[in-house]
Amino acid sequence: MPLDVTAKGVYVIAPTPFHPDGRLDEPSLDRMTDFYLGTAGADGMTILGVMGEAPKLDGAESLAVSRRIISRAGKAGIIVGVTAPGFAAMRALARGVMEAGAAGVMIAPPNHLRNDDAVVAYFHQAVEAIGSDIPWVLQDYPQLFQVQMTPTVIRRIVMDLPSCVMLKHEDWPGLEKITALRRFQAEGSMRPLSILCGNGGIFLDFEMARGADGAMTGYAFPDMLVDIVRLSREGKRDAAQDLFDAHLPMIRYELQPGVGLAVRKYVLMRRGIIASDAQRRPGAAMSATARDEVEYLLSRLGRHDARAKLPALG
Amino acid sequence: MPLDVTAKGVYVIAPTPFHPDGRLDEPSLDRMTDFYLGTAGADGMTILGVMGEAPKLDGAESLAVSRRIISRAGKAGIIVGVTAPGFAAMRALARGVMEAGAAGVMIAPPNHLRNDDAVVAYFHQAVEAIGSDIPWVLQDYPQLFQVQMTPTVIRRIVMDLPSCVMLKHEDWPGLEKITALRRFQAEGSMRPLSILCGNGGIFLDFEMARGADGAMTGYAFPDMLVDIVRLSREGKRDAAQDLFDAHLPMIRYELQPGVGLAVRKYVLMRRGIIASDAQRRPGAAMSATARDEVEYLLSRLGRHDARAKLPALG
Amino acid sequence: MPLDVTAKGVYVIAPTPFHPDGRLDEPSLDRMTDFYLGTAGADGMTILGVMGEAPKLDGAESLAVSRRIISRAGKAGIIVGVTAPGFAAMRALARGVMEAGAAGVMIAPPNHLRNDDAVVAYFHQAVEAIGSDIPWVLQDYPQLFQVQMTPTVIRRIVMDLPSCVMLKHEDWPGLEKITALRRFQAEGSMRPLSILCGNGGIFLDFEMARGADGAMTGYAFPDMLVDIVRLSREGKRDAAQDLFDAHLPMIRYELQPGVGLAVRKYVLMRRGIIASDAQRRPGAAMSATARDEVEYLLSRLGRHDARAKLPALG
Amino acid sequence: MPLDVTAKGVYVIAPTPFHPDGRLDEPSLDRMTDFYLGTAGADGMTILGVMGEAPKLDGAESLAVSRRIISRAGKAGIIVGVTAPGFAAMRALARGVMEAGAAGVMIAPPNHLRNDDAVVAYFHQAVEAIGSDIPWVLQDYPQLFQVQMTPTVIRRIVMDLPSCVMLKHEDWPGLEKITALRRFQAEGSMRPLSILCGNGGIFLDFEMARGADGAMTGYAFPDMLVDIVRLSREGKRDAAQDLFDAHLPMIRYELQPGVGLAVRKYVLMRRGIIASDAQRRPGAAMSATARDEVEYLLSRLGRHDARAKLPALG
Repeated sequence: MPLDVTAKGVYVIAPTPFHPDGRLDEPSLDRMTDFYLGTAGADGMTILGVMGEAPKLDGAESLAVSRRIISRAGKAGIIVGVTAPGFAAMRALARGVMEAGAAGVMIAPPNHLRNDDAVVAYFHQAVEAIGSDIPWVLQDYPQLFQVQMTPTVIRRIVMDLPSCVMLKHEDWPGLEKITALRRFQAEGSMRPLSILCGNGGIFLDFEMARGADGAMTGYAFPDMLVDIVRLSREGKRDAAQDLFDAHLPMIRYELQPGVGLAVRKYVLMRRGIIASDAQRRPGAAMSATARDEVEYLLSRLGRHDARAKLPALG
Repeated sequence: MPLDVTAKGVYVIAPTPFHPDGRLDEPSLDRMTDFYLGTAGADGMTILGVMGEAPKLDGAESLAVSRRIISRAGKAGIIVGVTAPGFAAMRALARGVMEAGAAGVMIAPPNHLRNDDAVVAYFHQAVEAIGSDIPWVLQDYPQLFQVQMTPTVIRRIVMDLPSCVMLKHEDWPGLEKITALRRFQAEGSMRPLSILCGNGGIFLDFEMARGADGAMTGYAFPDMLVDIVRLSREGKRDAAQDLFDAHLPMIRYELQPGVGLAVRKYVLMRRGIIASDAQRRPGAAMSATARDEVEYLLSRLGRHDARAKLPALG
Repeated sequence: MPLDVTAKGVYVIAPTPFHPDGRLDEPSLDRMTDFYLGTAGADGMTILGVMGEAPKLDGAESLAVSRRIISRAGKAGIIVGVTAPGFAAMRALARGVMEAGAAGVMIAPPNHLRNDDAVVAYFHQAVEAIGSDIPWVLQDYPQLFQVQMTPTVIRRIVMDLPSCVMLKHEDWPGLEKITALRRFQAEGSMRPLSILCGNGGIFLDFEMARGADGAMTGYAFPDMLVDIVRLSREGKRDAAQDLFDAHLPMIRYELQPGVGLAVRKYVLMRRGIIASDAQRRPGAAMSATARDEVEYLLSRLGRHDARAKLPALG
Repeated sequence: MPLDVTAKGVYVIAPTPFHPDGRLDEPSLDRMTDFYLGTAGADGMTILGVMGEAPKLDGAESLAVSRRIISRAGKAGIIVGVTAPGFAAMRALARGVMEAGAAGVMIAPPNHLRNDDAVVAYFHQAVEAIGSDIPWVLQDYPQLFQVQMTPTVIRRIVMDLPSCVMLKHEDWPGLEKITALRRFQAEGSMRPLSILCGNGGIFLDFEMARGADGAMTGYAFPDMLVDIVRLSREGKRDAAQDLFDAHLPMIRYELQPGVGLAVRKYVLMRRGIIASDAQRRPGAAMSATARDEVEYLLSRLGRHDARAKLPALG
């Protein structure tokens, strides 16, 4: 089912599991998919992003991973990152994964764009390249991509390009941006748009109240993100905040650029979801001290959330 | 007393209090100084940084604010930010505030430096400009200044320039950087250096264990930072972490670029430390929703930390 | 006389002459002013820009240099660069030099601005700071300042802020930008604006035909720039191009970032306009090889333009 | 024959000829190859760079273009740009073109690298990815890639990685960099390295004297570049400079970012080397005024260099 503006809930940014020798770990891939979409209760997954080590996969591997996850996902929506330096590569990957059954694709702007018209023109060109029939997610992540899109620019993109159905919101600070976009909708100057939030979930507590539809991020406890979204929708603000606050020390720790993916994979391994926390080369490893810090955070979290009560390390 | 490498504890990054009409608020300046250095138990203050709205003060005001705080501070060390686009202006301010009794100055690199030699050369030139007799703090804040200094580069600066006595550490992630620098010291390849941590304190829990000497940041509860540093030194890890975790939702909220200063001033006003949360123009204001969010966070924090129990808003 | 939109001709970007020991060289300052505005026939000068080593002058020196040049300049217009990291410093310098008789000031955007609204807002704030009574030049120099202003953004600034009277155009490529701005004027969507071109004059041949009013740059033969502007206005395209082409090898050589100022000062010294090519520390020096290259270019240029026939060295 | 450190002369940065409807124009590709390597006398070609519109070719097209040129090139060396956001894609293209007979590949650093160790580490990883058996060219182009490599950094890369055989030098200013690298070689601290210069050839006159081995750039008169290199080697400095100066107005015009490729393709079309100046979408077109400017420059150049005497436009 193609992605549309009614999408809500949690789309997990998925890592790619590898064996310690660098080979793809398909059983872990399957187990992880089952966990995210089954046990954890997520609504979808987003794959082949930066945190999925996509640049380390060649074209054939990228398609194989996409197909495997899509076929296992059943009705849940799989979004595939297709950001690329060239429109030819973007088109090839986008058409390929849509044929394989993806729900949509995600596109981030290249980091040399520094004025509004250049940003808007880029997305026009991207849609011309991939075809206007493919639903896509606009990734707004200025800290990483160095491109600033004001609410007005986002509105121009949304109104110019009907196939843009979702915003991956990870500006920081971004609370007022959600408010501004929802105001545009309320006043009728922008059509409806799904807004899912990133940044590891570190503002998810307030983002829901500001009007977000959910989260799209890869925090190693996506089941917690699902709870936060549900509790927020049910109006249980204090319960949501209690759970969120218990996880915040870990959310913050995992949000570190560079080492964050190592932390995430380590926790997923500790939870038994993937077999190894190995990254394909080149990757950033955790030091022994960092591992101790993560274990300390897990042990404290386990007192509030049973999902973090993990068997002691051998 | 001039700053030296034995400095430790908490140096509060101080805002500059203004009246709503933009005039300097001297009584608030005095009250804030007394609070930071008396009630809160901080060891020093750092003034005229970005969060002190320094660029909105003219030369005479900058000197006047510095003198007022220095004279009120007594024996506590006052560090003055002297980062400037030109060495002539840097020298004039540095010499002026040292004559007025400052303990040292702080210098950040300009954001066009993109290789190691250029960074090291810049600090050589800065020391030549201000004079090698002025103790100074190296500010390492890559997210804001876009300059990356590896531990090796920091060591070159420290070993080349004896008047560099402290690192304001706010790289993110930065835990391994502290470890690397302390390893340099342990192995004898770098002389001792005071390391105080910034970034609103959001990693202070682990930074202390990694070898930091304390914090230099402006979180609106500096008394809590003082507690964390003390508890960490006493080896009371869990107690420190309990207190830290209670504050983390607010630390995170205040860390937002742009709106963060508005939040900080608002909380300081709510605590009765400054009279108004006004910023001199141009400044970023908080929306009513943001204010509600802060009040919500304060009310929750008040359950764990009596210092956050504030009288209800009129 | 205050600068206005009818300004045309050549405004020379002036270096600041120093003695080899770093002291200001006032006699050279006077001789240079006389040369630019008398012998060379320029219409004005622009001082205290990056190429004027402004960051190496303290506040008192900046004002003293400005006053000396302004008083010597007579009726010719002196524009003063007031770009500063803070609006308080910008205001102080702008008001000071206008009181001293400057014709206007020049402002460049800070390099963190990355969307249209942020750029426009910045100039609103700058005008609020300096006062709407001071005529100012908008400096559009994306290679140095990393801020991209499309013609549409420039139009917004010009239409919002009546005290903006001139564009210092040094985008590269920029020919189509001049055409676009003149089209805005022709169609009535933008009020008239003086456009003077920078970049060392390296596109001045075509910029005049595209609608520029002249040049604002510091090439060491400003008398040649005056000729080009005059010949272009008289419709003598081939004569202008012949002269331009003869100078182009040197224009190109002087345009090198970093070493360019050393080349410019060296040629001005060789022409007898300033006494020394010294830069105040820190500065980039020319190697002996570079000096030989410049002498070779001068000797070749001397065959086409008598002004470059200089007495042999040593 | 694999590329090695003795490479010299002119390697032309080749555009990719398209039909107006966006299809590859193979006959033009052949004619262009014959012209560059035959008539013009170039020693090699560099393909699939930014100016070759590589990002608009999909994987199959990239390989097909490479194979066609390589097989037609005979003994001349073909270098293929393999810069890619991911090492998997870089490896796949590099291995593919080497199997097809390429002489070597060219790699530029990604624009987020901001300290020396990060730059050096990147090239270690790149060589690990493509294999240490593939000779490669280090592209040093700070204006475009925003990565600054000092001579010391280049030396580290060259000494660490024996398969690095050539520097594509296009720092600006870069004359002293060539001198510094050749000094490293002379003093024995760096092994020999081929240095070919870019930037459209705008400093080729002096680069040869500084020790460059030739040019790697795409100026639409590569036959002139071949002459300059030959005359320089023969010690005919004035003859070289006379020819260079005649071309400089056009070299400068073609060097404009963005529109430069349109100018280059237009001149190649006017010279009868390619059939159409079309760029595949998205591309920057020349205005009618720009075309007139180019024709004017060509007509003037034709007086000095018969190769620029072109039949009048219909």
